[in-house]
Amino acid sequence: MSNAEALPEAAPGRAVAPCCPPLTERPFTAEEAETAAPMFKALGDPVRLRLFSAIASHEGGEACVCDISDVGVSQPTVSHHLKKLKEAGLLTSERRGTWVYYRVEPSVLAAMGQLLAVNAATA
Amino acid sequence: MSNAEALPEAAPGRAVAPCCPPLTERPFTAEEAETAAPMFKALGDPVRLRLFSAIASHEGGEACVCDISDVGVSQPTVSHHLKKLKEAGLLTSERRGTWVYYRVEPSVLAAMGQLLAVNAATA
Repeated sequence: MSNAEALPEAAPGRAVAPCCPPLTERPFTAEEAETAAPMFKALGDPVRLRLFSAIASHEGGEACVCDISDVGVSQPTVSHHLKKLKEAGLLTSERRGTWVYYRVEPSVLAAMGQLLAVNAATA
Repeated sequence: MSNAEALPEAAPGRAVAPCCPPLTERPFTAEEAETAAPMFKALGDPVRLRLFSAIASHEGGEACVCDISDVGVSQPTVSHHLKKLKEAGLLTSERRGTWVYYRVEPSVLAAMGQLLAVNAATA
């Protein structure tokens, strides 16, 4: 229960914000596409999207596995998907005593939202 | 060159806007996740992301294949990825004479951006 036991398990795997301009601003370079595509891919699975939404909408913006396991798949499958979301830099996790808590960085959501901003100049 | 030849090749494959609340608002249902995940998946490939960005940022918000083929892959590969983007409802296309023109629906970008909106109440 003590924060002294905190083991930050993963910093985001890549610098997310501000990786790239809005998709509508100019054609992405190869490097920008390589940076941004894994974030979209991580949310491109229905189970991962549900887990991500469950964490993002949970009280305080974080949740432990015990809070979010009702998505109709096995615990190992949940763990697998959470790992994928961490690898994509969308979640961070921290162990506190028995449980690992997962958190969505608002900056990640903001960065992805910015990618999808509609550029009035080209709309 | 005449619009009389226009052959709308695909309406969006699914109703995108407004499919779902922001990811941070409440846990997605299974149905919402099944609707939204394919849009993210479609952008989860670097080549598709570059093609999408090239079209979205092109003058007038549309482009023909001749405008966007400099992404370092073969023409059949470009066509394959454009088909995937259409199937996900992110692009529409229309034949005009010799060329097929691709267009990003601003409503699709807006809907995806809304999914990623940070809910101040939970941040």
